[in-house]
This record gives sequence, structure tokens and C-alpha cells, in this order.
Amino acid sequence: MPTTSTRVANTPSSPIRRLVPYAEAAKKRGVGVFHLNIGQPDILTPKTGVKALQEADLAVIAYSHSAGMLSYREKLVEFYSRYEVSVTTEQMIVTNGGSEALLFALLASADAGDEVIVPEPFYANYNGFAKSLDINIVPITAHIENGFALPAMEDFEKKISPKTKAILICNPSNPTGYLYSVEELEKLRSIVQKHDLFLIADEVYRDFCYEGQKHTSILAIEGMDEHAIVIDSISKRYSACGARMGVVLSKNEHLMTEAMKLAQARLSPSSLAQILGEGLIDTPQSYFAEVTEEYDKRRQTVIKRLHAMEGVVCPNPKGAFYAFAKFPVDNADTFCQWLLEEFSHNGKTVMMAPGAGFYDTEGLGTQEARIAYVLNSDDLNTAMDCLEAALKVYPGRLKVNEINLDAN
Amino acid sequence: MPTTSTRVANTPSSPIRRLVPYAEAAKKRGVGVFHLNIGQPDILTPKTGVKALQEADLAVIAYSHSAGMLSYREKLVEFYSRYEVSVTTEQMIVTNGGSEALLFALLASADAGDEVIVPEPFYANYNGFAKSLDINIVPITAHIENGFALPAMEDFEKKISPKTKAILICNPSNPTGYLYSVEELEKLRSIVQKHDLFLIADEVYRDFCYEGQKHTSILAIEGMDEHAIVIDSISKRYSACGARMGVVLSKNEHLMTEAMKLAQARLSPSSLAQILGEGLIDTPQSYFAEVTEEYDKRRQTVIKRLHAMEGVVCPNPKGAFYAFAKFPVDNADTFCQWLLEEFSHNGKTVMMAPGAGFYDTEGLGTQEARIAYVLNSDDLNTAMDCLEAALKVYPGRLKVNEINLDAN
Repeated sequence: MPTTSTRVANTPSSPIRRLVPYAEAAKKRGVGVFHLNIGQPDILTPKTGVKALQEADLAVIAYSHSAGMLSYREKLVEFYSRYEVSVTTEQMIVTNGGSEALLFALLASADAGDEVIVPEPFYANYNGFAKSLDINIVPITAHIENGFALPAMEDFEKKISPKTKAILICNPSNPTGYLYSVEELEKLRSIVQKHDLFLIADEVYRDFCYEGQKHTSILAIEGMDEHAIVIDSISKRYSACGARMGVVLSKNEHLMTEAMKLAQARLSPSSLAQILGEGLIDTPQSYFAEVTEEYDKRRQTVIKRLHAMEGVVCPNPKGAFYAFAKFPVDNADTFCQWLLEEFSHNGKTVMMAPGAGFYDTEGLGTQEARIAYVLNSDDLNTAMDCLEAALKVYPGRLKVNEINLDAN
Repeated sequence: MPTTSTRVANTPSSPIRRLVPYAEAAKKRGVGVFHLNIGQPDILTPKTGVKALQEADLAVIAYSHSAGMLSYREKLVEFYSRYEVSVTTEQMIVTNGGSEALLFALLASADAGDEVIVPEPFYANYNGFAKSLDINIVPITAHIENGFALPAMEDFEKKISPKTKAILICNPSNPTGYLYSVEELEKLRSIVQKHDLFLIADEVYRDFCYEGQKHTSILAIEGMDEHAIVIDSISKRYSACGARMGVVLSKNEHLMTEAMKLAQARLSPSSLAQILGEGLIDTPQSYFAEVTEEYDKRRQTVIKRLHAMEGVVCPNPKGAFYAFAKFPVDNADTFCQWLLEEFSHNGKTVMMAPGAGFYDTEGLGTQEARIAYVLNSDDLNTAMDCLEAALKVYPGRLKVNEINLDAN
């Protein structure tokens, strides 16, 4: 039999989906499963987009420009100006999802064997992309007791080597909900300027910030033009995950010239999704106010309930729609599997994403799990009832004196 | 300024699009340009697909399964059975275009530094993918005087090294229109079996064969289960290039497990395009008969006209919608640029794709160009009038005694 590649052998399977067979088995047994494991919102996709698609002339569904339809890019220019981000149509390439935007950013900035520094815990699929491209992710641990704030500059300095090509952040963060302050972004600027690195920021959750906080794009920070690469997507903004419509933005002209070669090799992004995306830009601003209010309500529901559970530690997320919590259990992976395999409460149980999969450093996050608050508050409350009941009976629960509330 | 990667620096820009600025300038001067340079057909996308999309419930455009919606994969199983290809829903991963299918196939089969053998001339974007993934394409030259038939087995044997992981073919071929016979596919089977290689076949043009010829998928050849990887797409089949909807198929279970890691990292293919694709499978078979008849008419128009031009050599394409011709000119690249920059005939000119971009071996194809017969026969005839007139006045035309009709 022909041998497959080592790079994909080294690529981890998606940790988020490992538990799927257990969830399917639970459902077959008649147990209802609250899916808090994935970031698929139940929010409706705004009708402006679907209307644009349904009214479009689709007589011949043709290739678009490799960088995306000019009309769509022009609307994106206007869209980003709302966020104090000033870009031109030449400074963006429309992509098949934020995933392809990340693929282009990584390929254009790093060779095989190069290193990209990423604060952990981080979105597990970053590892999938990096490993398959022979790029080494160098993690810098953020700590739950600091609410997952940006690690100290000294920690970054220690990790930088001649192989370092970029720092990759997710802001607001999947999986922690942490929102970087302008001061933190300026610290990152000083590092990437000093060491001549790219700063890649995944900003797909920018629209969802809470408690009066405001997201700042790295493209709005002065002195970053040569360094900043932004990954964006309509998936979360408009609850249109299945459209696979993203964009990679940079003011670094040479970087964009290089990325365009990759864009041309795959011919064009989806024309259907671009028509949808163009329509979605006309979504009234009130949509975001309403959706953010809804997510905020869910966030408060989940956080309040988690904080009421003995031994559970969970920083207050300021953005995105995830909470990253530490549980008083022997092992969160085992706990999550047990929830699906052996537990139910009034015929229901909960599926979460085990935390270890979000860390690159072996042994970290073993008591943690990510909760996506993508269900309505009633369902979330019932899900939290399950979780609370489960923590009381789980055989691997820790005794109160075994719980270390501070340690990561 | 941060440095970009060497692998993308080494990735060639799309040769097909190099002449685009000259075409744009011609249009600004008021010269009409017949685009024979790209494979964007003018054929209508069947309404069954668009109807499915317009009638779908798009309240929440959600992620699908990473391998594609089960309902779509089930319909694909039925679809492939029409071609005597027997596959299961587990033996396919739905992708964002044939491009992503190729990306998955290459990444899963080859490491950085590994080699993939490709008969040249070949689809230029194969190079874009391979170079950016640090995979070396090893070309084997097919010759115009043999109609671009499969090179001799000894040629393959000579090129195989310990680094060889796969042979990649396009059948029917973009850019030559060559259709491999069952005997040729069986020869390839003996090679991949003997050397334990993958055989990757890009079969996106399978529906368009002429002169009573029939396409055979490598998945229909016995003894290939562990070796065959098929790249497919709805782009050409249903004239839906902008949908970016492809699929990678293999009966090699381990290969598919590896490819699934890549599919999961990018979450899912486009849900919109899958709904379209599912509807398109209901397209009546008469559509293919009509479209093939139309392409055949165009093919005959182009070939007849080319054969009537002094010194032009062009094998008769048996599939796809491309003709690959050799012209009595000093350099086809210069000729193609001159056609756009300096020539017009009754206010019109022709854009072709210069042949050298389809060869990996330096110096080959310099008198050749690819013609996509994607316009109606009247336009093609007028385009051929332009080409014929151009060949009479082009300053770099060869004298009759300089033309070598046999050499490649």
C-alpha cells in the first residue's frame, strides 16, 4: 500500500469532534444532548443576504476574480471603515472561509520548519493547519487565574528564535473569550517591530464584545502596516458558518502579492457566498445590537451558573461566545466522555470541548473545557442543571481539599 | 519588513492570467477580445440546481459535516454509479472546488521534498499547489506529434526515485484534450502497483468526450483500490465554476482518514454549493447530450480552422474543451502578447494561453498555445478569422522552410 505523508500523520484529529460518536450513541439511547462543544450559533442569518442570493442572476455561475468580486471588495472597504479600519480593495483577498484566509497567511509567511508563536489555549484547528504545512507552533501559556490575558513580553522574548516568522492571536479569543486591550496590542506591536515578524490576528468574533468593551483591529494600530495580517469571516458575524466566506487583509503589499499566487492557483472564492456576503453588508446595525444583547444574556446565564458550582473556575469572557472553565475533576476529557456515555439528568446531558485539545503544551488544560454559549438561555439553564448535577456524582470528582483554585 | 516564505516565492504566478493587463488595455482601446484563454464556459448552469438553492431553507446557513452533507454524498454515490464507479459515502470528501480536492490529495500523499510525476503539458495550477507545499513536480514530456498520448513506460521508470509518491494525470486532459485509453490506464496501474505509488486523476472533464469515445475513471479499473485518488468538481460538468464545489474520492481507507483531518481543520465545505450540487444531480441526462454536442460543434469548428492555417499543428482533442496547438511563430508568448498589444482584425483580437506555462521543462512549448473553445461557433469562427489574419502579418512568424512540423 502506498504510504501517506508524515506531515498529515502528525496533524492531530480535531479534538472537538473526537467525542461525536459518544454523543451519537447517547442520542440513540434517547438522551438529549446539549451541544456546547461547537461554535455553530442558532441565530438566524440576516434575510438581506439570502434575499440577495435568491434575486441574483445565476444563469451561469461563473468564476469571480481570484481576489474576489470587485463589487464585494468595495463593499468590504466601506464595511471595515465602520471599524476605523482603512483598507483598499487591493489589500484584501476574499477566501473560502476564514480557514483559507489562515492557510494563505501561514503559507505566505512561513516555510517548512519555521515557527509561529501562539498564546495557548488556542483554537485547536490552528494546529491542524500548521502541522500539515510543516510549521511549528510555539505556544506561550496564558493562565486562567489571569483571565487568559496576554502573557508577559519576557515570555515572548524567550520564545523568539531565528525560525520565528509570526505571532498568531485570536481576538476576541476562541476558546477563552478574552479581548485584548489596545495596550496589549501595542505590546505585540513592539515585539513584531523589534523582531521583524508578522502579527496574524484572527478577528472573526470582533462583533461580539460585552460590558461596554470595544474591539480594536490590529489594522487600526499605527506602525503595523508591514506586520499586520487579519483573518476575517462572515461565519460568526452573520451566523453564516456554512457559507465559507472569509477574507485575508494586509497592507503589506509584497505579502499580498505572494498570497495572490495562492489565490490564483485555486482560481476564485465562491461566487454564491460572495453574493450572499455582499447582501449581508446591508444588514442594519441594529442586528448586531440585538445579537450581542442575546449573546450577552447567554454569557451571563452561563457564567452565573458556573460560578455557583463548587470548585468551578471561569474567567468572565469579554468577547466571542465561549467560556473556558476549570472543573473539579480528575480529567476533563474523561469527564466529557462520561457525560455522554454514562450520565443523564432528566433525560439530558451536555457535550463540551475538553480543554487539553486547546493547549500545545502537554499536560495543560486537563481539568478545563470550553463551553460555546450558542443555545438560548432556557436551554443553557437546563444544560447547566445537567452539569451541576453531573459534578455531584461524577466518580472522578475531586474532594474540596484537592481543588486548587489558582493553578493552571 | 518581515520576510515572506521561500516556498511561495518559488510558486509561479498563474501563467494564464499574465496577459490579463494587456487584454484590459486592448479593451480600453476599443478592441474586442475573444477570451480563448480560460476555461469559463458560456453554457447555462442547469436550473435544477439554482431552483434547489432558491427553495432551500436558509434560515441559518450552518456548517455541514466536514466530509459534506450525508444527503449530498448519498446522491453522489448514485451519480458515480452511472459511470460504473462504485463508491460509498465514506470514500468521498466534499471539497471547496476541485482545487481543495487536489490540495488534500497532495498533502495527504506527499511530504516536503517528495516528488509527483506529471505528464506535461499539464494544467499550470498543479505547479502552484505543488510548489507552495514543497512538493517537486517531475515532468514526463508527452509529444504533440503523438497527439500527447501517455509517454512510454520506460520514461516513467526512469523518473521514479525513492522520493516519488504519486503520478498525477488529468483525464480528459486540460490543456491538450487527450483522453487516456483503458490500456493506458492499465499501464499506469502496473507502474503504481510495482512502485507502490498513488495515482491521482483529475477527472473534472469526464462528461465531455467526442467521436464516440468513452471516459474510464481510474476508480473503475480493477486492482487500483489502494492507489487511486480521484479529483472531481461540478465546475465544468454543470458550468458552475463559481460554486467551488468539488470532491476527492478514494477507496484507500487510510488515505481518507488522513484527508479527513484536513477536512476537519477547515470545518466544512460550502453548504450553499452543496445544496446547489444536490439539485444539479437531478439534471436530466439529455443536458449532457446537448452540451457535449455543442462543445463538439465548437471543437470541430476550431480544429477545422486551425488545420487550414499554414504551419499550424493541432492534435484532434477527444475530450474536455481545449485544443493545444503549435504555431509557426518565433515565440508563442510574444505572439499572444502581440495579439493583444498590437493586432486587431475588424476591431477584434484573440487571447490564448501561451504553451510554455503548461510545461515544467524549461524551453518546451515555446511555439504552442492553449485554446479553450468555450464560446459559440460564430464567435469561434470570427476568432479564428483574427488568428488566421494575425499569423499572416505577425513580425515574428516563421518562413515555411523554418517550420518543423514534427518537433515538439
